[in-house]
Amino acid sequence: MSDDFVEHAVRGLAEIRLQHPLVHNITNYVVMNWSANILLALGASPVMAHAIEEVEELAGIAGALVLNIGTLSAPWVDSMFKASTSAHKRGVPIVLDPVGAGATLLRTNTALRFLKEGYLNVVRGNASEILALAGGVGGRGVDSLHTLEQARAAAVELAQNHKIVVAVTGAVDYVTDGIREAYIENGHALMGRVTGTGCAATAIIGAFCAVERGTFAATVSGLVTFGIAGELAARGEPRPGTYQIRLLDALDEVNENNLRSMARVRIAETK
Amino acid sequence: MSDDFVEHAVRGLAEIRLQHPLVHNITNYVVMNWSANILLALGASPVMAHAIEEVEELAGIAGALVLNIGTLSAPWVDSMFKASTSAHKRGVPIVLDPVGAGATLLRTNTALRFLKEGYLNVVRGNASEILALAGGVGGRGVDSLHTLEQARAAAVELAQNHKIVVAVTGAVDYVTDGIREAYIENGHALMGRVTGTGCAATAIIGAFCAVERGTFAATVSGLVTFGIAGELAARGEPRPGTYQIRLLDALDEVNENNLRSMARVRIAETK
Amino acid sequence: MSDDFVEHAVRGLAEIRLQHPLVHNITNYVVMNWSANILLALGASPVMAHAIEEVEELAGIAGALVLNIGTLSAPWVDSMFKASTSAHKRGVPIVLDPVGAGATLLRTNTALRFLKEGYLNVVRGNASEILALAGGVGGRGVDSLHTLEQARAAAVELAQNHKIVVAVTGAVDYVTDGIREAYIENGHALMGRVTGTGCAATAIIGAFCAVERGTFAATVSGLVTFGIAGELAARGEPRPGTYQIRLLDALDEVNENNLRSMARVRIAETK
Repeated sequence: MSDDFVEHAVRGLAEIRLQHPLVHNITNYVVMNWSANILLALGASPVMAHAIEEVEELAGIAGALVLNIGTLSAPWVDSMFKASTSAHKRGVPIVLDPVGAGATLLRTNTALRFLKEGYLNVVRGNASEILALAGGVGGRGVDSLHTLEQARAAAVELAQNHKIVVAVTGAVDYVTDGIREAYIENGHALMGRVTGTGCAATAIIGAFCAVERGTFAATVSGLVTFGIAGELAARGEPRPGTYQIRLLDALDEVNENNLRSMARVRIAETK
Repeated sequence: MSDDFVEHAVRGLAEIRLQHPLVHNITNYVVMNWSANILLALGASPVMAHAIEEVEELAGIAGALVLNIGTLSAPWVDSMFKASTSAHKRGVPIVLDPVGAGATLLRTNTALRFLKEGYLNVVRGNASEILALAGGVGGRGVDSLHTLEQARAAAVELAQNHKIVVAVTGAVDYVTDGIREAYIENGHALMGRVTGTGCAATAIIGAFCAVERGTFAATVSGLVTFGIAGELAARGEPRPGTYQIRLLDALDEVNENNLRSMARVRIAETK
Repeated sequence: MSDDFVEHAVRGLAEIRLQHPLVHNITNYVVMNWSANILLALGASPVMAHAIEEVEELAGIAGALVLNIGTLSAPWVDSMFKASTSAHKRGVPIVLDPVGAGATLLRTNTALRFLKEGYLNVVRGNASEILALAGGVGGRGVDSLHTLEQARAAAVELAQNHKIVVAVTGAVDYVTDGIREAYIENGHALMGRVTGTGCAATAIIGAFCAVERGTFAATVSGLVTFGIAGELAARGEPRPGTYQIRLLDALDEVNENNLRSMARVRIAETK
């Protein structure tokens, strides 16, 4: 079954490079340039736009909508809701990155409101953020203070209650739709030395959702692909500046051979 | 005549490196850091400022004003108009990048309002954006869905109606003031794999406008210089992350020898 | 006495890499990504957040607060004041970067208001910015038009009047608390070819303030460390794009050996 999911990733990546799907990002100031370059390196086509007057129109031409609350403020939340309502009406998949949920009430409450009213298809966060969405415990800024072991039950609960796919990323990435689960052991510790690698993972999941109906498979595909790119970029153990650039290079380099030879995915039923 | 324009570029580049002209950018969040580094690598001095309280003052010390509607919202539009009015009064050249015109009404209408009331000297866009300004057809986000062949007449019409210089960039760059036209065949396909290369072209045009009175020649100079830098950066066919960094290096490297030996410019009368 | 300060830097750097202090930045759009990566490369943990609803909460978990007025607008100023009041109550050190003070009234007046009401511990600017805070002369955008010789007396005056540490950075960096002063001759001219190196210096000072009580020593430590990283990055005289990336690499590379062998610090009493 794991092999099936690797083939999903292979097909998804080929589709992204064929279709160049438009991924509409309403994201934080810190990673706007980075996320756009991540998506371009992968083969997708990014658009960053947050004005409330235009987010509806963009939903009409986008293949996926990626919402990220990393440098949140009230007017942006309004735009995100308008965008998600509009995307939902048109069947455009919606991915949320609840950056810093648990660290401040504004972020926790906004993320919780998205879970209830945001028509989300996928949520990707670190262990602290996912725990915060399930029960309100705190993180520290954008760092995770918790482990996957601690967050796994919260992820399953969120997935089942909201009928969404939940991804918890960290040393091992975990994905569940409440029925199945995937453990992805790709990636590299250097990813934590570059700002916005979590946001990049979310944007990449958005690109895969734009070309693949199944959001569980698309999320697994995105995380496997990014994790392998993270390993390719780490060859020779570069320092963090060089690693940042090689990560973009590696997203351009990653291909079906890498995916098939390097993927470390384990699929199981959620118990 | 084409040789004259290469010598214009040579002199313009020398002046930029001598004077370090201050280029005031009111630009989008995605490219603020990138555009600043592009201008610094070229030899100009960037300032990014959008607060309505200070844009008038900055017009008093800037050599050029670059407006970019890439992540537009209403308060920024007000600042842009105040800045352009003030720049115009002081004879500071104004360059507009109508990012995404045609993709949303907000962008199309804002760009059209700038054409009417913004005292523009130069507009640089891709084929879809320039077509949208002439007639309202749509693009897709920031990607061009049209060719220069389709957009050329629109560019000439805009240039003649508004007495401005219009540049359409793509595989071949086109510049017209409604009387003359330039075809610039420099550049490299890898430029499309880095976010904000269009915005970078516009910022560079701004720098050349700051040191050269003739906006047609300044626009041609900027696009030739950036195109050649794009070719220098592509030596060895790097992947997109590395290419992004080499593009900055190449803007520092490009010199009169490169300009004279590599420029591929054709000047003609507009028919 | 200079040797003592190098040992301060050695201990501070070790503490940053041990504790990964959370540095809360309310900074400008241009450098948000860059400053975050600077802090990560150094070993600190950045958080960028400006929403007025959450800045108080973040002060409760941050080790330092860095305020930067580089792309100022009114709502951000309100958030900065709320953050600084809250940080002050909890004993969190506050560092201000008065970007462009002197270039526009908005920036000068905002920086002056911070000096009076912002509970600042450290201010770092270029010579023009520091002169503007002491007497209102003008800069040009973010470039300094003045020398350390011109700004030294202003720095001492500000430090004494406001009981803060003032740093003037340039070819030689100068730090004073009104009683002592430090001259730091580390650094490299290429730092001026990358946008946001001044902002990076301020963020790094924030990281050192988070792990060291004495703000004079922390400021000296930060500037020595960054200056040496600037020299390490300049090996082989790279062009500005490559230099930008190597600067991040060098902040990861700099260690006690570099600090001890390369530091060029002179400490004296302020006369």
